[in-house]
Amino acid sequence: MDSGVGGLTVIKEFVRQLPNENYIFIGDQARMPYGPRPAKQIQDFSWQLTKFLLQFDVKMVVFACNTATAEALPVIKPALNVPLVGVIPPGVRAAIRSTRNGHIGVIGTAGTVRSHAYDRAIHAQAPQVHVTTMACPKFVPVVESNQYRSPVAKKIVAETLGQLPDKDIDTLVLGCTHYPLLRPLIQNFMGPNVTLIDSGAETVSEISALLDYFDIRNLDHTVSAAPKLFTTGSPDMFKDIAEDWLGMTALPVAHVAVEDLPAVPAAKEGIE
Amino acid sequence: MDSGVGGLTVIKEFVRQLPNENYIFIGDQARMPYGPRPAKQIQDFSWQLTKFLLQFDVKMVVFACNTATAEALPVIKPALNVPLVGVIPPGVRAAIRSTRNGHIGVIGTAGTVRSHAYDRAIHAQAPQVHVTTMACPKFVPVVESNQYRSPVAKKIVAETLGQLPDKDIDTLVLGCTHYPLLRPLIQNFMGPNVTLIDSGAETVSEISALLDYFDIRNLDHTVSAAPKLFTTGSPDMFKDIAEDWLGMTALPVAHVAVEDLPAVPAAKEGIE
Repeated sequence: MDSGVGGLTVIKEFVRQLPNENYIFIGDQARMPYGPRPAKQIQDFSWQLTKFLLQFDVKMVVFACNTATAEALPVIKPALNVPLVGVIPPGVRAAIRSTRNGHIGVIGTAGTVRSHAYDRAIHAQAPQVHVTTMACPKFVPVVESNQYRSPVAKKIVAETLGQLPDKDIDTLVLGCTHYPLLRPLIQNFMGPNVTLIDSGAETVSEISALLDYFDIRNLDHTVSAAPKLFTTGSPDMFKDIAEDWLGMTALPVAHVAVEDLPAVPAAKEGIE
Repeated sequence: MDSGVGGLTVIKEFVRQLPNENYIFIGDQARMPYGPRPAKQIQDFSWQLTKFLLQFDVKMVVFACNTATAEALPVIKPALNVPLVGVIPPGVRAAIRSTRNGHIGVIGTAGTVRSHAYDRAIHAQAPQVHVTTMACPKFVPVVESNQYRSPVAKKIVAETLGQLPDKDIDTLVLGCTHYPLLRPLIQNFMGPNVTLIDSGAETVSEISALLDYFDIRNLDHTVSAAPKLFTTGSPDMFKDIAEDWLGMTALPVAHVAVEDLPAVPAAKEGIE
């Protein structure tokens, strides 16, 4: 799940690394962006998407959204009967492996930055690393409006990243799954000596390890011909971005109305 | 744990990737090699080593031994209260990622080959891959006798690997944690176009992912000054190989007698 199309960056890697596994994806475009919302609301929305996915009898849930991983995963994970994977720990591990000078930058939504999920996790493993986090609130809307290759996007990227205070950063974590769609513009602005960390690839490696660990791989190779993509917003815009990004055509995208999403579980069922 | 010094190839990568985590290692040199033993005996010995490690209140157990992973992990894992990680699934994932022509070779002990753990797991994920498995019973003894850089070792490697029937192998899994100590000789014999898979590095990546997944990382950075290395055999020979392989000096190695290992749990406690 994701707040919108950003989760497709994880799907792209998923399809490549795990061709024998099926997926169901839902993007909550009607209520994106999640980043500026209060934590409680992000938790409620994440619960609704999680319960929507559980209706399909899924064997694992992936929060392909940094904001949901930071703000909602810790309260939802203990309440589920299936493994729940987020995108932040894999990104943290990849960033620590990547940095050579110990200067890591993390860009994300306001919610992700506010949660301190990245800086806390990096410092827990590598206390000596210098971490700079910065919210980029204009990035998600420019991606969701399918302008991520436009001159407007280039200008927003330059203006935003120009404010990064640490000029020694050698590793920049794209701490929002929407940002890989802006990758060429971000790499161009940061220069060739900065390694960009897209947690998608690393997250799918973790998914693969957990499929083994919990012994839940799909062994009969019955991959559904039609991957299920849902959006709470406009299927047309979603379809355009999905087909462009995944390099596929005729992707079936279905609409699900926000009011038709399952209700948030009551506190006694597992959330505080 | 390992049947002997082979697990040190995992320890070496563990110390590099997870410098903030402590470890306790036991090598069952008095009863090595495990490879030719019957499955039930491998399960009993693995249980004893596992219970020995659990005495130290460990938060995770790693079978740094392919034979134990193949023959004993499936029966011991469900009975433990802490995560149990083996070396085969990580090696399988790495081999599938590595092969370009779909010809994978797996060398291991008789027990590992007999279990079909590698070929089954590779085919479950990639049915089209051609897998050749071969037991190399002379490799473990030559490593354990500290002759892994000798002309004898070179001769054994050449004679053994010369019998691999598939000449198109582009990826060879070192399906025994002892074999990385023979890596230069194996690479030299196979030639530069064959990628050798040492599951150690990949296993430690999985350990790191599970530390995050189960939220059990060591956050206070109190790494014990003295890593604990135990052997049921001679501490002197073990120490020589460990110091050479890990590039350390004055490693404290303690002896524990086989008769002082904990007993195998009764069937009702979890084994059949």
